Amino acid sequence: MPQAVAGPEIERLIQLLARMPGLGPRSARRAALQLIKKRDTLLGPLADAMRVAADRIIVCTSCGNVDTSDPCTICRDAERDPTTLVVVEDVSDLWALERSGAVKARYHVLGGVLSALDGVRPEHLNLASLVERVARPEVTEVILALNATVDGQTTAHYVTESIRHCDAKVTRLAHGVPVGGELDYLDEGTLSAAIRSRTAF
Amino acid sequence: MPQAVAGPEIERLIQLLARMPGLGPRSARRAALQLIKKRDTLLGPLADAMRVAADRIIVCTSCGNVDTSDPCTICRDAERDPTTLVVVEDVSDLWALERSGAVKARYHVLGGVLSALDGVRPEHLNLASLVERVARPEVTEVILALNATVDGQTTAHYVTESIRHCDAKVTRLAHGVPVGGELDYLDEGTLSAAIRSRTAF
Repeated sequence: MPQAVAGPEIERLIQLLARMPGLGPRSARRAALQLIKKRDTLLGPLADAMRVAADRIIVCTSCGNVDTSDPCTICRDAERDPTTLVVVEDVSDLWALERSGAVKARYHVLGGVLSALDGVRPEHLNLASLVERVARPEVTEVILALNATVDGQTTAHYVTESIRHCDAKVTRLAHGVPVGGELDYLDEGTLSAAIRSRTAF
Repeated sequence: MPQAVAGPEIERLIQLLARMPGLGPRSARRAALQLIKKRDTLLGPLADAMRVAADRIIVCTSCGNVDTSDPCTICRDAERDPTTLVVVEDVSDLWALERSGAVKARYHVLGGVLSALDGVRPEHLNLASLVERVARPEVTEVILALNATVDGQTTAHYVTESIRHCDAKVTRLAHGVPVGGELDYLDEGTLSAAIRSRTAF
């Protein structure tokens, strides 16, 4: 966009918005205009919320979650089962599991998965502290909640090897038909896994 | 998302991001996480840019454009043709025309179009100041750059009536085949208009 249209402040806002995931150059312009129109109800509060987040959010030194306190809200929650650790790749996976409400345990965020292609090696992951946490006597189960991709499963194997010397049982998420899923649309690997792991009805 | 996952600061950031155009609840979570990961390169600067925009952006009292100065950069630009006024519905249309570089004139942003369905009446639009601007002796042409929709064309007719007593010539954008467009995909109305307004080759 030529310089003359709007002041440098608007240009800079558009350029930064365009770097957000889910927004391109065109939608960033639309978003900037909408924000300016809703200045008091959205732009101002969003600026404040981002400033607070930028100043106060830290990574939990225990589990790798992001929060405004260290240890994080989940690590401090006394009602959670201390015997189980759920290993996830990323904070977004932790949030997804929490939304499901399926497990009331503590987490360990690896911060990525091993990937030869992307050059991610074991020392890049949050692994040393995982081994140390699993070695604690109260931990009896480690649930590997990693993506069912090649990299995710490679990482699962590596994590299993790393904590083999501990007493904790290592489990992984079940493979099968997604709830609400149609068989016709599923791949052969998923269907095979679902048949193999069939349960009594 | 249950309250326990992250502090209220992150929750609030996600809720506000979800209100931005182009982001839903799910993509707002992803965006929030990306912003937190790029705290120093994106979240902090974006917070500052939004704060500056919220504090300093104003609506130009002459044309209705948004800028950090009043009159806006375009109204102050002495190199622009003072004889022509381009009437647009919204600031986004002004930006689009400026990107095209097709016209070096001044603009007038109506702030909407007449719409019986949405209850937008003439008094809701930035019309009085348009009539006043067109009445100035230096203005000899008014280009109606409004959307080729029913509401846009209704508004075009209304604007034409409102400034009929002025001496300025009123023109509208040409209808025709979009550059790069394929005839097979165009509607009959556009093709008819393109045939009617055919030009020598």
